[in-house]
Amino acid sequence: MASYFDNAATTRLCDAAAAAFSSALNIYANPSSLHSAGLEAEKLVTSSRKAVLKAIGAAQSDSLVFTGCGTESNALALFGTAYAKKTNAGGTVIISDSEHPSVYSAAEELGRRGFTVKTVPTRDGEIDLEKLLSLMTDDTFLVSIMTVNNETGALYDIPALCRAVKERSPRTLFHTDATQAFMKCPVDVSKSGVDMMTLSAHKIGGPKGVGALFVRDRVVRSHSLSPVLYGGGQEGGLRSGTENTAGIAAFAAAASYGAEHFDADVEKVIKLSAMITEGLVRIGIKPVLPASRVPHIIPAVLPGIRSEIMLHYLSSSGVFVSSGSACSSHHPGISRPMTAMGLSAREADCTIRISLFRENTEEDAEKLLAGLESGVKNLIKQYK
Amino acid sequence: MASYFDNAATTRLCDAAAAAFSSALNIYANPSSLHSAGLEAEKLVTSSRKAVLKAIGAAQSDSLVFTGCGTESNALALFGTAYAKKTNAGGTVIISDSEHPSVYSAAEELGRRGFTVKTVPTRDGEIDLEKLLSLMTDDTFLVSIMTVNNETGALYDIPALCRAVKERSPRTLFHTDATQAFMKCPVDVSKSGVDMMTLSAHKIGGPKGVGALFVRDRVVRSHSLSPVLYGGGQEGGLRSGTENTAGIAAFAAAASYGAEHFDADVEKVIKLSAMITEGLVRIGIKPVLPASRVPHIIPAVLPGIRSEIMLHYLSSSGVFVSSGSACSSHHPGISRPMTAMGLSAREADCTIRISLFRENTEEDAEKLLAGLESGVKNLIKQYK
Repeated sequence: MASYFDNAATTRLCDAAAAAFSSALNIYANPSSLHSAGLEAEKLVTSSRKAVLKAIGAAQSDSLVFTGCGTESNALALFGTAYAKKTNAGGTVIISDSEHPSVYSAAEELGRRGFTVKTVPTRDGEIDLEKLLSLMTDDTFLVSIMTVNNETGALYDIPALCRAVKERSPRTLFHTDATQAFMKCPVDVSKSGVDMMTLSAHKIGGPKGVGALFVRDRVVRSHSLSPVLYGGGQEGGLRSGTENTAGIAAFAAAASYGAEHFDADVEKVIKLSAMITEGLVRIGIKPVLPASRVPHIIPAVLPGIRSEIMLHYLSSSGVFVSSGSACSSHHPGISRPMTAMGLSAREADCTIRISLFRENTEEDAEKLLAGLESGVKNLIKQYK
Repeated sequence: MASYFDNAATTRLCDAAAAAFSSALNIYANPSSLHSAGLEAEKLVTSSRKAVLKAIGAAQSDSLVFTGCGTESNALALFGTAYAKKTNAGGTVIISDSEHPSVYSAAEELGRRGFTVKTVPTRDGEIDLEKLLSLMTDDTFLVSIMTVNNETGALYDIPALCRAVKERSPRTLFHTDATQAFMKCPVDVSKSGVDMMTLSAHKIGGPKGVGALFVRDRVVRSHSLSPVLYGGGQEGGLRSGTENTAGIAAFAAAASYGAEHFDADVEKVIKLSAMITEGLVRIGIKPVLPASRVPHIIPAVLPGIRSEIMLHYLSSSGVFVSSGSACSSHHPGISRPMTAMGLSAREADCTIRISLFRENTEEDAEKLLAGLESGVKNLIKQYK
């Protein structure tokens, strides 16, 4: 059995999701079809939507738009708010300097299309709130700041940031990419006030190919969001395309299971994370720990060993970690979030990401630490 | 067992796809991860891509961008070519008046954003080629015409249309939405010259939640297509987002199975289609048959009975057909393709769509015809 510590990249399909998936494959009609088989499929999508809304503390009157992935949810939040405006006069979007590429690159594209894009710096895993407020202008239609950073594990105080943004400008929409937060730390939208929140199924034991964007009722009613995918008008007109019925049902099952076991799972991950962090220090690997952080993502700087070398070394004995985020690991470059954490380019290049989920065991952690210890001993001389 | 004649809306997952799906679920790592588990997932995506490219007669140097659905593939073709242009000077896109909503509404949105959208009329299921050529201007960056109409079953002569467009303007890109054509009639891109072609997995016995856009190598090399989803740079940078590995593998399995059994399946559907068409005439239901058509989609006008009434009547005895296309059946209105076929609004309102796939049997067809015959007898007086 592999020791899989790349759960921030993706998780194994959990049993609850797998069961829902199998059973939903029999309900194969198109939810848009009007016959009884279509109706059965539509009911499955509706009950799944309710389950995910419940898991994030949303009102049943709020919208949850099922998408094809977290990246699409982020695109919907950014492009959707940009193009919902009646005028073509542009407008300003503010993001943090440590957003996931699916937010960062979408914002860059909006910039190429004539919108104004501003970036608020993070420092040691915190958003500079003063700076954020000073960047806001009358035409700021969206602030998008992630809940948990996918590389550093920094946990940003979204409720406080959202409150401050809304105080400065009640009309400005607030979006958070909660892909790395959902089912790892609380993301209750009844407490945070966010207008939109991105979720991804495959980060919580659900299948790949399904994401969602939570959209507050008032955003829909005020027509402040337009689609990215136009067509048949599914998902309340906000995301056309035949619904991925089985994937959606499996997503909902993963969310319901996760919500039910949340406290125990978090407690387990906290314990394991502490064990790993202590172990790392013991073998001369430096964990990078933002002041406010989640336990399930541990970035750590190796003593003069490039992360990719260590990753392959560990991989050969069935221990899986990541170098930087999986989403950008095929496109190397200096990590923005790591640089914002104060790491040098060299340190960032030597940083591995250990990411946990409830399935990880103490045995896994021991195997990981043993592999790292052996790696440090064997690889350090090669690099010098 | 239900008599399912709504295969143009969606098909049942075939055994080959289901098997590939189950087995791929074990390969759960992120294809972007650099460890051996990630590599295994990446290999699965690569071999799946090759299989689908092979099934459409494409060169292995061509691109196949996996997406979340056919709607997303169409969005990529339309928005992607519109925004790939270096200037923000607009440009013209030409579509037919009978396109699927995912093309039609995407073009409308481009129109709202300052691009010029022109619509070439279809008449009795044929594209007016003279008109198409007369609409073309120097700034026409894209012509998008579907291969098979999802409501009428009309088969447009894409190779000839593409040739004429390219003769008039070699720089204009040609896209075809082949969602209803793939695995139902030949769509060999080595013969048709199209630059881009939309495919959808769930219309060919694959899973929902996976589509693809075939993109000719020259389109990629000339940077004539930009993404709709920005981010981690997956799919050659043309579609970011974690790959739906299992869905992609199942899509490829469905395509490979379909390609292998293509001739026999088409022959079977032709026979069954003829049997149904003759049966319809016998019981006073008028098939609407474009001169050039595919056998697997049969629109038919009921004698003064609204299609929705008949649909529910049949549904109660386990016979499933559609009223218009499933994608727009929740959003009633006069069908553009049906109007273009010369039907009155009243006739269009009384039109059902019977759509076949290789799994349909003679017994299914008999049950369908018996249901329709009984429906005509029982319902006709209610409507008058």
